[in-house]
Amino acid sequence: MKSFNSILKSLVYDRQSWLCVGLDMSPESLGSDSLVDLKEHTFKVIDSTKEYAVAYKPNFAFFERWGSEGFSWLEETVDYIGDNHIKIADAKRGDIGNTASQYAHSIFNHFGFDCVTINPFMGSDSINPFLEKKEKGVFLLAKTSNPSAGALQNVKEDGITIFERVAQMANNLNYNDNIGLVVGATAPKELQIIRDSSPGMPILIPGVGAQGGDLITSMKIGNQNGIGLINISRSISFAGNMSSESIRDAASNYLLQMSKAIT
Amino acid sequence: MKSFNSILKSLVYDRQSWLCVGLDMSPESLGSDSLVDLKEHTFKVIDSTKEYAVAYKPNFAFFERWGSEGFSWLEETVDYIGDNHIKIADAKRGDIGNTASQYAHSIFNHFGFDCVTINPFMGSDSINPFLEKKEKGVFLLAKTSNPSAGALQNVKEDGITIFERVAQMANNLNYNDNIGLVVGATAPKELQIIRDSSPGMPILIPGVGAQGGDLITSMKIGNQNGIGLINISRSISFAGNMSSESIRDAASNYLLQMSKAIT
Repeated sequence: MKSFNSILKSLVYDRQSWLCVGLDMSPESLGSDSLVDLKEHTFKVIDSTKEYAVAYKPNFAFFERWGSEGFSWLEETVDYIGDNHIKIADAKRGDIGNTASQYAHSIFNHFGFDCVTINPFMGSDSINPFLEKKEKGVFLLAKTSNPSAGALQNVKEDGITIFERVAQMANNLNYNDNIGLVVGATAPKELQIIRDSSPGMPILIPGVGAQGGDLITSMKIGNQNGIGLINISRSISFAGNMSSESIRDAASNYLLQMSKAIT
Repeated sequence: MKSFNSILKSLVYDRQSWLCVGLDMSPESLGSDSLVDLKEHTFKVIDSTKEYAVAYKPNFAFFERWGSEGFSWLEETVDYIGDNHIKIADAKRGDIGNTASQYAHSIFNHFGFDCVTINPFMGSDSINPFLEKKEKGVFLLAKTSNPSAGALQNVKEDGITIFERVAQMANNLNYNDNIGLVVGATAPKELQIIRDSSPGMPILIPGVGAQGGDLITSMKIGNQNGIGLINISRSISFAGNMSSESIRDAASNYLLQMSKAIT
């Protein structure tokens, strides 16, 4: 069985794609709060982007908003994505060991995701249950893309910030070669520090597009010595007039910019 | 409209109960992985403890494990608890602003919880969407009860630890009088520091029972100048032979110990 990080690396090299399409299916952005319309749009986004994307990242909040019906839609969405793309559960889980085991069961066994975003605030015993199967992976939040991210993440003791400690934690827990890090495109300085300290470790980079992070810089730094996956959500899913063509053009254009950035 | 913290305070004083029953419905503990059995047991726990508990805290992981069917069970559970107890969503959410808004919608509007546990790692803009309605509350993780909690939470800059920064953050964001803190019973020293720095702010204290935290110490410190709610999960839900009597006796006995501790 190959490790998650090696599976991801092979797929990125084979497809020459670093594009992760974030599925944040906001009723406000679609202009409809019908679950039927939202489902249809999700499938349209997947159909229109599958030849460009290497990964999809459904954001659990936008499904949970609808309760059990939303999770039924998430089950359908994971099935619809299928096995040709990396399926990232954007769930940002983090809890004590026995609870974390239940979340790992949910995300890997029940829903069938390949990997999950994890909040490191509670330390290693909250992360370990997600690392047991080497073919399943974890992306640990190191430096997030939002405005107040630095309040705790940049706190420094003995010259080492919290986000650097998270990177160290990830390196220490990487015995199954199945951990990566999340670093926002809005924090290029921190991205460089983390890229340098974690050679070979995949980095998932959100925050390009609506949040204002720079695509070219993120690609260049993120892919210096390992995979840098770029997540784009709203700027693809709700591109232009939201037609299949607009969505496809946005995905194709983002991928073209990514390729150019590192060649 | 009264604030969440004042509603909680009145209810604790009226009922003379500090007992939060955690609903962590583990199939391993029940000895059955039938969802029907788990649902039945959940309702049995609620029926057997409702005269002793002031709050219930369903742990999302144990519902999510079953996907959409699990969330349907969670919807039923929230309805079953009804309006005579504080309903705490143990979801430990934390995400960027627009995603946090969706989680707030899910937890308060869709499921109808009164409050939610929130992970502060991403800073204030990840918390604000949960604070907009003053009658709905947030418990921010400050110092958790698990073994590796200190790895990040005890990191100190300028003499101030991360868990103290979280308490400061909570105090700063408490403009609607609807924030409390989570501090593990396994960390009595940190509980004292946080209780002293946050007068009047409710503290939710997990980690008594299976995790080894001390009930009497937690009650004494937690209730010095504000409400200290004690969460008990496994030691009540799976007490003795798991009969209604065993569960009722466990709840009654815990509440008796709590009363004695502060009189």
